[in-house]
Amino acid sequence: MNVPSVSQRIINTDVPHIEIVLNRYAHLDPPPANLAQGVSRWNPPPSVFRAASDGSLSETRTHKYNAVLGLADLRDALHSKLEQDCGLDMTGQEIMVCAGANQAFVNAALALLDPGDKVVLPRPYYFSHLCSLQLAGACVEYCDFNKATLLPDMAQLRQLLRQPEVKMVVITTPGNPSGAVYSRAMIEEIAQLCREHGTWLVIDEAYCDFVHDGAQHYSPCANALGFDSIIHIYSFSKSYGLAGWRVGYMVYPQRISEHIQKVQDTVPTHAAVASQRLALAASSGGSSSSSSSAWVKQQVAALHTCREAMWSQVSPYGTVRTNGAFYFFVPLPGGPASEDAAIELLAMQCGVLVTPGSAFGAPGHIRVSYGSLPEPECLEAIARLGRGLRSLAQRAENGPEG
Amino acid sequence: MNVPSVSQRIINTDVPHIEIVLNRYAHLDPPPANLAQGVSRWNPPPSVFRAASDGSLSETRTHKYNAVLGLADLRDALHSKLEQDCGLDMTGQEIMVCAGANQAFVNAALALLDPGDKVVLPRPYYFSHLCSLQLAGACVEYCDFNKATLLPDMAQLRQLLRQPEVKMVVITTPGNPSGAVYSRAMIEEIAQLCREHGTWLVIDEAYCDFVHDGAQHYSPCANALGFDSIIHIYSFSKSYGLAGWRVGYMVYPQRISEHIQKVQDTVPTHAAVASQRLALAASSGGSSSSSSSAWVKQQVAALHTCREAMWSQVSPYGTVRTNGAFYFFVPLPGGPASEDAAIELLAMQCGVLVTPGSAFGAPGHIRVSYGSLPEPECLEAIARLGRGLRSLAQRAENGPEG
Repeated sequence: MNVPSVSQRIINTDVPHIEIVLNRYAHLDPPPANLAQGVSRWNPPPSVFRAASDGSLSETRTHKYNAVLGLADLRDALHSKLEQDCGLDMTGQEIMVCAGANQAFVNAALALLDPGDKVVLPRPYYFSHLCSLQLAGACVEYCDFNKATLLPDMAQLRQLLRQPEVKMVVITTPGNPSGAVYSRAMIEEIAQLCREHGTWLVIDEAYCDFVHDGAQHYSPCANALGFDSIIHIYSFSKSYGLAGWRVGYMVYPQRISEHIQKVQDTVPTHAAVASQRLALAASSGGSSSSSSSAWVKQQVAALHTCREAMWSQVSPYGTVRTNGAFYFFVPLPGGPASEDAAIELLAMQCGVLVTPGSAFGAPGHIRVSYGSLPEPECLEAIARLGRGLRSLAQRAENGPEG
Repeated sequence: MNVPSVSQRIINTDVPHIEIVLNRYAHLDPPPANLAQGVSRWNPPPSVFRAASDGSLSETRTHKYNAVLGLADLRDALHSKLEQDCGLDMTGQEIMVCAGANQAFVNAALALLDPGDKVVLPRPYYFSHLCSLQLAGACVEYCDFNKATLLPDMAQLRQLLRQPEVKMVVITTPGNPSGAVYSRAMIEEIAQLCREHGTWLVIDEAYCDFVHDGAQHYSPCANALGFDSIIHIYSFSKSYGLAGWRVGYMVYPQRISEHIQKVQDTVPTHAAVASQRLALAASSGGSSSSSSSAWVKQQVAALHTCREAMWSQVSPYGTVRTNGAFYFFVPLPGGPASEDAAIELLAMQCGVLVTPGSAFGAPGHIRVSYGSLPEPECLEAIARLGRGLRSLAQRAENGPEG
């Protein structure tokens, strides 16, 4: 008997980093504070609770298959929101509701990339993007980051795009894990480069509502740029606290509609109808979409205390004060070689879980989230994180024997 | 400006057949009766409605991320069910809850197949299997079917498996679209062939609860066969009427756990937590898993009237009386060339939607479902289907000008 093997594709695919961190320290008692996962501390808005309890989740339509593209009323609501609130010109653009933003990205990867196609992925990247690209068999070309901004080194990006066979560029703004918000000028330059080189531009905007200190999120309007090869990816998980419901959406040029639908029909068929109904309730807030935006803005603004507390602990180590998402990407005092030991010390001695920078292609850092825990718990965890970082800094100063 | 193209992979992927049939005739008024889609006529069992209204869908744990493998209590319940009700020896086997059986199959395809790997897929196949294999870049080798049984031509299957590079065999029992239930002897022979040739065997058992006229569904126990390369795929959509919730599961040897988890983490992260909670409520029925099985058996048995009514209309055309799922796979009187016209006539003149055989790799047939509509509506649609088939038979007899 021969035992059949798994694919080289999956061997070449990165591991599920968050699951590994969570599982490795799941036995600890008390459980460590989770600063590792990209999850919002809030539950969904009141409109969702009303929708969940008004009986509509028990209706027949919730149990049956529905449209591959998503519920018509949710797609209409998202269309209006993108046109009115975000100022996108949606002419020629289509919306597809997906089982989360990751699954939307998988749709793009499988529909647009063939094995061996080159994709430019700036570090530090969101790890699920890398995994999707690997599953699609793409050849990933990394672009380094500017250490002062955590944004791409534009000279290198221009260089990489000169290769004729680059098929796609992927950016995340606000950044995960960096928290860096791409400037309008930089996004427009990247879009222009993609336009010139005939390259897809995929922009993951899962954290589009998460901007601080007056920063602005810029979503490039494909039509205004005269460029019909931009794919936007959005999530309900973060803004509306709906992570467990697995619902997000993508916006793409209608010309690829039949192609994207093939992947969607094959993989999830559609996002769970109940999840879509709650997403509709979330995005319509109470009476209008602006009240929903106001609710999200309020939640994000209330992260201020934890953000500042976190900043005061991480700023001594050369951390960039980025203005998006709910992360800081902290250089480890001991450099890349200290990463494993740092994660271990923070979990075992300080009771905090953080994500290793190597998960994002930037070893020697940790990603810490100030958005995942209720304020008192978060402040306590941040204090412990601070002690851990000081201890790591002392060790680094004293050398390995210190 | 160059406009970037889509992938050859997606161009080579089959279209979403059901969505196309539904959309093509969506404008008709009154709407045609849907005998095309593989959906059960019932809503979920009472235990699901209790779970949906007891407040647990509003709890924080429903909104947050959960384990990639699925909820621990659901996995435990499924483990017991498979061991106790189905008699599987689960030693060394692992369960993963997925966002539907299709997404489970995608996990297997991406984790086990590299581009160019050969996969044996007996016709008539379930179309989503083909699409997943195409997305994975596999090279599909079709096996013809025995016209008297709609089961694989075993001589050809043996022949195909002699090719050293075959990596996987995919079967569906009870069959979709055939309704054919594989015999224990045939499954054991296929499993034995896979074992000898070092080939993965994927068995889609989405319709495992749908057997009629005393037929038995046989699920080969990997351990009893001394063969740790079987993957079972199950769905909650059909048995429990939970199609809209997108939840199913897969069973696979633990040795590939880390690989399967990589795909799962990248694509849906996990099935929606609420969907998993309802799946748990469904499978635990009321007090015990056997009461849940009894509920499903009752629903399936109640299909009898529609099944017999359908049979009386489709039997004159050489249809095989299969004993599984809720389909008959009907040879069209006019043969393969008549397929498009037949679908059109049935929709436009008779008000019934059916699925073309070409969607399943067997042109010149239609798949009709007697499980999707409430009984009175179904019986009426079946009568109209009967008239349509008689009209098609007359046309075929009279020739194209008749």
